[in-house]
Amino acid sequence: MKSPRLQIAPNGPEFSRIVLGLWRLSSWQMSPAQRVAFLQAALDLGITTIDQADIYGDYTSETLLGEAFAYAPGLSQQFQIVTKCGIQFPAALRPAQTSHIYNTTAQHIIASAENSLRSMQIDAIDLLLIHRPDPLMDADEIAEAFSQLHASGKVKYFGVSNFTNAQFELLHSRYPLVTNQVECSLMQMAPIYDGSFDLCQRLRIAPMIWSALAGGALFSDAGENAQAIRVCLEDIAQQLDVSSSCVALAWLLNLPSRPLVLTGSSRVSVLEEAIQAAQLRLSREHWFDLWRAAKGFDIP
Amino acid sequence: MKSPRLQIAPNGPEFSRIVLGLWRLSSWQMSPAQRVAFLQAALDLGITTIDQADIYGDYTSETLLGEAFAYAPGLSQQFQIVTKCGIQFPAALRPAQTSHIYNTTAQHIIASAENSLRSMQIDAIDLLLIHRPDPLMDADEIAEAFSQLHASGKVKYFGVSNFTNAQFELLHSRYPLVTNQVECSLMQMAPIYDGSFDLCQRLRIAPMIWSALAGGALFSDAGENAQAIRVCLEDIAQQLDVSSSCVALAWLLNLPSRPLVLTGSSRVSVLEEAIQAAQLRLSREHWFDLWRAAKGFDIP
Amino acid sequence: MKSPRLQIAPNGPEFSRIVLGLWRLSSWQMSPAQRVAFLQAALDLGITTIDQADIYGDYTSETLLGEAFAYAPGLSQQFQIVTKCGIQFPAALRPAQTSHIYNTTAQHIIASAENSLRSMQIDAIDLLLIHRPDPLMDADEIAEAFSQLHASGKVKYFGVSNFTNAQFELLHSRYPLVTNQVECSLMQMAPIYDGSFDLCQRLRIAPMIWSALAGGALFSDAGENAQAIRVCLEDIAQQLDVSSSCVALAWLLNLPSRPLVLTGSSRVSVLEEAIQAAQLRLSREHWFDLWRAAKGFDIP
Repeated sequence: MKSPRLQIAPNGPEFSRIVLGLWRLSSWQMSPAQRVAFLQAALDLGITTIDQADIYGDYTSETLLGEAFAYAPGLSQQFQIVTKCGIQFPAALRPAQTSHIYNTTAQHIIASAENSLRSMQIDAIDLLLIHRPDPLMDADEIAEAFSQLHASGKVKYFGVSNFTNAQFELLHSRYPLVTNQVECSLMQMAPIYDGSFDLCQRLRIAPMIWSALAGGALFSDAGENAQAIRVCLEDIAQQLDVSSSCVALAWLLNLPSRPLVLTGSSRVSVLEEAIQAAQLRLSREHWFDLWRAAKGFDIP
Repeated sequence: MKSPRLQIAPNGPEFSRIVLGLWRLSSWQMSPAQRVAFLQAALDLGITTIDQADIYGDYTSETLLGEAFAYAPGLSQQFQIVTKCGIQFPAALRPAQTSHIYNTTAQHIIASAENSLRSMQIDAIDLLLIHRPDPLMDADEIAEAFSQLHASGKVKYFGVSNFTNAQFELLHSRYPLVTNQVECSLMQMAPIYDGSFDLCQRLRIAPMIWSALAGGALFSDAGENAQAIRVCLEDIAQQLDVSSSCVALAWLLNLPSRPLVLTGSSRVSVLEEAIQAAQLRLSREHWFDLWRAAKGFDIP
Repeated sequence: MKSPRLQIAPNGPEFSRIVLGLWRLSSWQMSPAQRVAFLQAALDLGITTIDQADIYGDYTSETLLGEAFAYAPGLSQQFQIVTKCGIQFPAALRPAQTSHIYNTTAQHIIASAENSLRSMQIDAIDLLLIHRPDPLMDADEIAEAFSQLHASGKVKYFGVSNFTNAQFELLHSRYPLVTNQVECSLMQMAPIYDGSFDLCQRLRIAPMIWSALAGGALFSDAGENAQAIRVCLEDIAQQLDVSSSCVALAWLLNLPSRPLVLTGSSRVSVLEEAIQAAQLRLSREHWFDLWRAAKGFDIP
């Protein structure tokens, strides 16, 4: 089984629906050879898209990926690379940064993208996202930075993360965006109801989903809500002969906006579950059973 | 006095502003002859539009209407018929349905519309609504179902019910919708403030209003809020020499989005009050007095 | 130092970014000569735009301004005049008004604008705003009133105040609006996050901000929130060698939607602080420090 693929927007790139999230890469304590093996295992599952950010691992995650790419020539070309910019905070590797701020100036966006290219030892970023909506963002200035990065061949496509619809429509009016990467899970249904996914579907743009298992809370949280979800997940998992986390991911992957789902684990078995989830067609009965378990009340 | 009439959307159908809501038809225990008499009384008041749904009366209401139409040949042609689809729940008449779900697949929409035609013994539905926003709705698939039903002459126009603006704009981008049927009353002002009626007015689409008297709570609820509204309604009713419920309906019918209002009663006197409300021009002083009574505070 | 100037909308008028708010004019107890001197002091600072409303000072503020204009021939032509209509309440000068209502009928809008012209002793209003969103507003009727006022030369441009995005988009679809005047300050960030300023930026329309210092609460409120803001303001003010209120205004004036900010004081020193604020480029570090102080938590 391999991850299905998707053109994520009109005139947008083709990505694997399961995306290798490397948010925690630095905590995995992998040698370069282990990183290469992990990346190769992902490729073998058809997971060709990687999600990064300049800030991940306190500004180390992109470098660790770059080391793996250098260790295995030709490897990087088999991936589509997504990374992000726009957040700055104090860190050992960024001594000049004294404060936690958002920075969406053209200068910072361009410098950050160029730094990401160097860190990851690649020639081009497939998709660059503004990491968080910045109250100070000047859409014309951001669009100008995007245009320059595109013209120089350094970044192919652009998108955003955690944007409301009004913020998305503002920036999209100046430069075509190909995704909005948002948090969504059985424990966080906001984008299903606040219009985010409706706008994506209207624009035929696939959202990307982070924290698809609620950062693990879905399986570790002791609260009533998480417990009720787990009981329902386990029941359906048993009926379908898959794992609970496979069902939890399928619940998202069955959404009609065709979201891409990020993984967050270093275990290949977790990637395999995600691939399985991408193939799993949940019945509406199962889907709404999970909705009820998650919400604690029936649909109207 | 007769109900005023309204073209509910650009290129949309002409309906009576007072709409005969048959949600509770099955509970009225009417013989076919009594049903015909009730429908004829509505027609005499210019109420030519009927509101139905596949699920009303646990899937019996459309059939009861169809019996009346069969009993009085020619009667159905004098009405515009609105019905709905997209909700499924366990019911004696639907033994295959084991669970409460939304279903907006093309297959279900088409099958439901065809079943509604048979149940009501009519050749065409004037307006078919998606009953509830479905998180799993694929707008392209719904539009395809609408197109097929329109091409076959089975359904003339399409709309939605209880949709947010983002949901409305999604489906409207694929197929032109002619209404959004929402709950609104002095006890439920959400669509006045959440943008629903603003969008309708912008698109020159008339919303339809259900539960215009808050399901009766306006006159039976013991809470302070309902009491304050009743005192204000009675005061204005006395000044204008009409009933309190006539004033409560006029409060809605005076909205600039020109909403259609559904009735819910089997009593002809209630229909007459609604017709009277549709003629009643409330002063701004009275309208805002009711607003204040309903909200419990003054306008800013 | 003089106030910077701004074309507030495509094809819109050019205003000073600092706007002389005359909401409290009647409470200032100024003689006509004093009013003239105050207006002249504003002009000397490049504050050429005045904000008024028919209702200010219980319907007296426009008249007091008009007396000053009559007292100093040629003075009024040096200003751009913004005024508002659409609210009615009982007042000694409006004995016919028995109730607090919104009134956006064409008749009222036109009569109110004509009355404002007479009261202020001017030939044309530069910008007329609908003061509050009116649930009963008929956008076509308002647009018709705007068109008539424009055709007769009585009003040059039109806008709104305190409108949600849905309300703005409704009226803007019928007549081009050049601003939305809303409340915003370190204690009221709603328009930064509810999409209001995003829509303004998308349409390249400059919002206007009222209550930029939270009606004074920023400096007088005893609550923890206001205290935390004050500590942060004072710290930054000391670093930049300006006043705290200058920093508080600069926090707004640095927003990328390029808001115009209304003053509310009769003291020329306050106007001078506002002018200074309009020149002050706050660093992102300072801007987000104030955000954190105001919210009581860090940015995500």
